[in-house]
Amino acid sequence: MTLETAATQMAREIAEQPDALRATLDALLPRREEIRGQLGGRRHVLFAARGSSDNAAIYGRYLLETHAGVPSGLVSPSVATQYRSRLDLSDAVVVGVSQSGRTSEIVETLDWARTSGAVTVAVSNDETSDLAASADLALTTHAGTELAVPATKSYLTQVAAMTVLGTALGPQDATLDAGLAAIPDQVQSVLDHTGGLDPVVAQLSETPCVVTGRGLMMGTALEIALKLEETCARPVRGYSYADLRHGPISAVQEGVTAVLVGAADGPLHDAMIELADDLRTRGATTVAVGGSPAMAAACDLATGALDVTERLAPLVTAVPMQIVVERLARSLGLDPDEPRGLSKVTRTDVPTQEET
Amino acid sequence: MTLETAATQMAREIAEQPDALRATLDALLPRREEIRGQLGGRRHVLFAARGSSDNAAIYGRYLLETHAGVPSGLVSPSVATQYRSRLDLSDAVVVGVSQSGRTSEIVETLDWARTSGAVTVAVSNDETSDLAASADLALTTHAGTELAVPATKSYLTQVAAMTVLGTALGPQDATLDAGLAAIPDQVQSVLDHTGGLDPVVAQLSETPCVVTGRGLMMGTALEIALKLEETCARPVRGYSYADLRHGPISAVQEGVTAVLVGAADGPLHDAMIELADDLRTRGATTVAVGGSPAMAAACDLATGALDVTERLAPLVTAVPMQIVVERLARSLGLDPDEPRGLSKVTRTDVPTQEET
Repeated sequence: MTLETAATQMAREIAEQPDALRATLDALLPRREEIRGQLGGRRHVLFAARGSSDNAAIYGRYLLETHAGVPSGLVSPSVATQYRSRLDLSDAVVVGVSQSGRTSEIVETLDWARTSGAVTVAVSNDETSDLAASADLALTTHAGTELAVPATKSYLTQVAAMTVLGTALGPQDATLDAGLAAIPDQVQSVLDHTGGLDPVVAQLSETPCVVTGRGLMMGTALEIALKLEETCARPVRGYSYADLRHGPISAVQEGVTAVLVGAADGPLHDAMIELADDLRTRGATTVAVGGSPAMAAACDLATGALDVTERLAPLVTAVPMQIVVERLARSLGLDPDEPRGLSKVTRTDVPTQEET
Repeated sequence: MTLETAATQMAREIAEQPDALRATLDALLPRREEIRGQLGGRRHVLFAARGSSDNAAIYGRYLLETHAGVPSGLVSPSVATQYRSRLDLSDAVVVGVSQSGRTSEIVETLDWARTSGAVTVAVSNDETSDLAASADLALTTHAGTELAVPATKSYLTQVAAMTVLGTALGPQDATLDAGLAAIPDQVQSVLDHTGGLDPVVAQLSETPCVVTGRGLMMGTALEIALKLEETCARPVRGYSYADLRHGPISAVQEGVTAVLVGAADGPLHDAMIELADDLRTRGATTVAVGGSPAMAAACDLATGALDVTERLAPLVTAVPMQIVVERLARSLGLDPDEPRGLSKVTRTDVPTQEET
């Protein structure tokens, strides 16, 4: 897919992702020492975000815990904005993630975090935003203006900011850094080889769908579920692998499509293949997104194996499904740029008008 | 509903909940000073759980943050059991919640927490379980043996254990304690007045469904969604109010049933009514679960307003929907005691056999 042939704004923005990633990594990677200096003394990192930004933050949380050894978690914004609780956050960093930097719920949560003693970080796509201006440290993504309602390049550059944060606070790792430098080209390669995606579009056009992933890939699975749901106007559930096994797997049966989001390596690789076998036994049609050739082979359909290590796989793995979602929406007669009932200006709380 | 007329094991266990709550509160409330003494010095409380236990923990997390002022969060078990990360948890309490106390993923996570420096707490229904035996503090629920696969009385007594934990670490509050003492009778009152629930059963039998709640009621909303999903074998999505607003609301349209889970008071009360209006405008049929008379009036159907303050409402609010789920499963020709593809022995990880 190229900029020239893209039919919609969403498709154009998907195609801009290699450049957006390059610009973001070029801007943020040189700041890792500064980040370490400013945040390294705190014991906890907490993220505050909604929607796609929250899905990027979930990856950030796992990367910090598994790579940097920093206990991390997610703030519940309502604790700040609705209950107005007084918590002692003097040992914490709180990271607000918002594309526009103007989601008032997140701006307000970061203000609350600061008055609660936290060091604050803003990850936004606008260095002049309220979120960026008020934070102790602003990590600005360079996605450029995003016009389509479904977040694509803004999401992927937020993921890149999470990688910068996680590697800044973790041990230096030249192999990982070399892998990170190769990511924009790998995203371009996905964009250049989309011919195999139409069977996945066809499969998803007809059936109810669940999406599952785990650990470092959990945020990607939730992002794919959210994108399918909000762009294609159908309920799609994203599950962690373990939560799916724990109960809801009973709802997976003949006629359900199960999308499995994995990586090429990592401690969960074999479990995803085993899950694919189980879901097929229950009658589901399985779709592998990312993962190894073995995982792709274990599923009925696949968007293509990706040769990217698990810690970096969230920088690439959503991309083929962004393309699937854009095509699926059009095939359903929907406008992917303006999903029914949504606008780029969203509201998450009662009286305020906000942006994502 | 009485024990005598209950058609299924699940119905019998739903009916046993007032006694199970009384026994659990009688056993745990006198231990609040001990709990405060053993845990009060730690800065953070983290919960490790799956499924219904996780839904109880989500309430515990909000109660600790909003009532006790203790920063709280949820552990990702895979960080412990799959990635085997080394984190410094020497300022944390980690609470493992598992009905059987034998879910190996949770037992293993609590072991990992202890070696990471945490003080550990076990909330289980079996004081002889591995989880209880190995924890620094065992808070045993008194639900009695639960045989039906869907957790009901074990879930509600876990919620009670969370209330004990949250009030132990929070300020003394005689009004709240008096409300807590009245809870078993209020649950009995719900069980005694189930005649109005059949229209809700009929509504849910025919349509796709989303369930939404927020803050202190979020765990209850997720529990209702999980119960509908695993017992009635249909995909049901539980959303936080804000996450629903942020995007997936586009999938809510004519023919969708939206279940709104609220409380009679609290900072989110008015927002739930406003959400009900919005969802009706989009064509959804709305069902109020719990909440005030005003919230019930704002929805097309209601399970009955509950005169319980928000901090205690999770001890009652799931009950009418447990009854709805049991009836709905039977009306669909399913056995609520043994949902398709599930057993009381669940697996969440690859090689081990575990219990919930």
